[in-house]
Amino acid sequence: MQPLQGIRVIACEHVLAGPYCTLLLADMGAEVIKIEPPGTGDHARGNPPIVENERGERESGYFISLNRNKKSLTLNLKHPRGKEIFLGLIRKADVLVSNFRPGTLAKLGLDDATLRQANPRLIIANISGFGDPEVGGKSPYWQRPCFDIIAQAMGGLMGITGPAGGPPTRVGASIGDIAAGMFAALGIIAALFARERGDAVPQVDVAMVDAVTAILENAIIRCSIAGKSPGPVGNQHPSIAPFDSFACKDGYVVIAGGNERTWQNLCRAMNREDLMNDARFATNADRVTNYPQLKAIIEAWTRERTKAEIIELLVRYDCPVGPVNTVEEVINDPHTLARQMVLELDQPVAGRVKVAGSPVKFSSAAWRAVSPAPLLGQNTGEVLQDLLGMGEQEIQELRMAGIV
Amino acid sequence: MQPLQGIRVIACEHVLAGPYCTLLLADMGAEVIKIEPPGTGDHARGNPPIVENERGERESGYFISLNRNKKSLTLNLKHPRGKEIFLGLIRKADVLVSNFRPGTLAKLGLDDATLRQANPRLIIANISGFGDPEVGGKSPYWQRPCFDIIAQAMGGLMGITGPAGGPPTRVGASIGDIAAGMFAALGIIAALFARERGDAVPQVDVAMVDAVTAILENAIIRCSIAGKSPGPVGNQHPSIAPFDSFACKDGYVVIAGGNERTWQNLCRAMNREDLMNDARFATNADRVTNYPQLKAIIEAWTRERTKAEIIELLVRYDCPVGPVNTVEEVINDPHTLARQMVLELDQPVAGRVKVAGSPVKFSSAAWRAVSPAPLLGQNTGEVLQDLLGMGEQEIQELRMAGIV
Repeated sequence: MQPLQGIRVIACEHVLAGPYCTLLLADMGAEVIKIEPPGTGDHARGNPPIVENERGERESGYFISLNRNKKSLTLNLKHPRGKEIFLGLIRKADVLVSNFRPGTLAKLGLDDATLRQANPRLIIANISGFGDPEVGGKSPYWQRPCFDIIAQAMGGLMGITGPAGGPPTRVGASIGDIAAGMFAALGIIAALFARERGDAVPQVDVAMVDAVTAILENAIIRCSIAGKSPGPVGNQHPSIAPFDSFACKDGYVVIAGGNERTWQNLCRAMNREDLMNDARFATNADRVTNYPQLKAIIEAWTRERTKAEIIELLVRYDCPVGPVNTVEEVINDPHTLARQMVLELDQPVAGRVKVAGSPVKFSSAAWRAVSPAPLLGQNTGEVLQDLLGMGEQEIQELRMAGIV
Repeated sequence: MQPLQGIRVIACEHVLAGPYCTLLLADMGAEVIKIEPPGTGDHARGNPPIVENERGERESGYFISLNRNKKSLTLNLKHPRGKEIFLGLIRKADVLVSNFRPGTLAKLGLDDATLRQANPRLIIANISGFGDPEVGGKSPYWQRPCFDIIAQAMGGLMGITGPAGGPPTRVGASIGDIAAGMFAALGIIAALFARERGDAVPQVDVAMVDAVTAILENAIIRCSIAGKSPGPVGNQHPSIAPFDSFACKDGYVVIAGGNERTWQNLCRAMNREDLMNDARFATNADRVTNYPQLKAIIEAWTRERTKAEIIELLVRYDCPVGPVNTVEEVINDPHTLARQMVLELDQPVAGRVKVAGSPVKFSSAAWRAVSPAPLLGQNTGEVLQDLLGMGEQEIQELRMAGIV
């Protein structure tokens, strides 16, 4: 049995932060019903990569990777009958997740008070760029639109990422959205726990910019103590050496040989015991000071070898090492397979595709069949029938009227 | 009342992934008792930045930023009496979090079966580089040491981060540790929820490399569909333009003006309505194709202005924009203040310092006084007395024997 089995989540979500949050909930066993506007659906359905089959049908890989294990229900929330159906679903739900700008649902007449009235036990969670002024504090920017790159920039992460002394660099995955989705999932499950114990049911509010600030590691206290902002430092560790990436014949490896034992093991592995007695590299402090020379020596050695050769050797000498994997290498790594970190989905249009698995492993959870990402409105009939007891004809009428 | 109030967590943790996990739990109200080796403590207590006061006492900013709201108890787990005390604490706990290589506690005679026997309701959670072979799948690398840079490299994130066409780049915060800590916290709270409902008590296992793979966004499905690995793309969006960072007088801004409306608003804000009729930039596809020319035009404009000027103007024209904040700017941003995303701690040695706040905001949680990070063993006596009913003399004897 999975931890969140039996929990029903209504998701008014689009693109990334909301869908990533409910993906985590779905992977732990929750039933996620994704509400999408009839006709267009979640914008992410149009995001590349798009796969087109021979019948001209299209499916977005981007959408697929975020929406497995969910149900899709189309619903026009602007129509009075749509709102009524929505409140009917809310009555049967445990959680509402949305990632629109604060006030979006309220403008449709679905404000928090109305939702709470329909279901006093409902956990309401919102993810937005700058947070909900009614819940977690009123940011001066709360009405502004936000995209991942804005959250990464404003939250401080871009400013500490990138080549040493170089321009700020965006993390190659949308960590501003993803971290916000993770923190929201954390808050939602904590709220479910509190509710189960009989405590008050809290609302959950996560801002993308806050999520980025929260993962800056020690940057804020460093700035607070030193009185100046840390900048990008490249791949090199600021106070440990060697601790960096190194070019080799077929890519890059990272070597983390910072303490005396692993440093000496590295020297032995390179067959350069002489370096152990070299005054320039005697202590970690010396190695940090003379790092450009040290880097040149190590990289001259790694450039002559393949990733596999270097790793085989350094592992044998017990010096921490790893390949800088391309995505293809990640997919095919025996580690990935052993940990089920890549799942194959059989999509109705795109066919068999691979997506990242869940990194949260439970001992007691029976393996759960992974269902592919739903086509737009794929579960509309089933959900309306099962949850609201509607008949075929009523559903047909709603479809004709463009309400579902 | 905070969601996790009354939950007691025993933390055998060091440096980052474990401490970040239990920081999230502590911020939600859990009582976290950090077990540290007498004398040395968590290695992070030696990590820079180090503050020294006039009495020559030292405190690590790195440690402080990860350990607020926790208690510190020193305990020698290698001593039979130390093990006994540990099992006594385990009997009174809800969760055990550790971030050592799998098998480390077992080698001390504290294997999972022993822990479970002491407390059948205990949730055991482990974070490691490559996962626990007994729980989440046996990686061929499970015995290897892992550091953040290795997780970022092997999990695939470095390979998609950095300047377009350039070398792989490490994210400037230790996201391999931090994401693992977040996923572990998620699993732990889900397990607490399951236990509260009367379900079986699962073990939780998170690998740092898996955590990185799980946050690659759409990289895996892109590779699966295209048959080739995506590489670093810099700050520019691969299929939307303009969506990038731009140098200005006093730093950088990001502008996300990808759709027709925001693109036209950007043109108006720059007083360059002519670009709206320029064939090179007519559609998003055209702007992506001719992006180098477009970037030059926009950057020529931004270089003449300050961040504040650009933001004031683009916000007025409803074009998504934000500053690339330095850490100091993050700390002083009115958004950060409004959302309590920077907390001030009064540390016994380091004095008043600033750390990142919690991004998970609950409506119902009363503000909780934030306690500073503990000195090594600060709560040893209090915990032994309160939880195990020990007297002053017994505690004194344990101290003299170096057991606590």
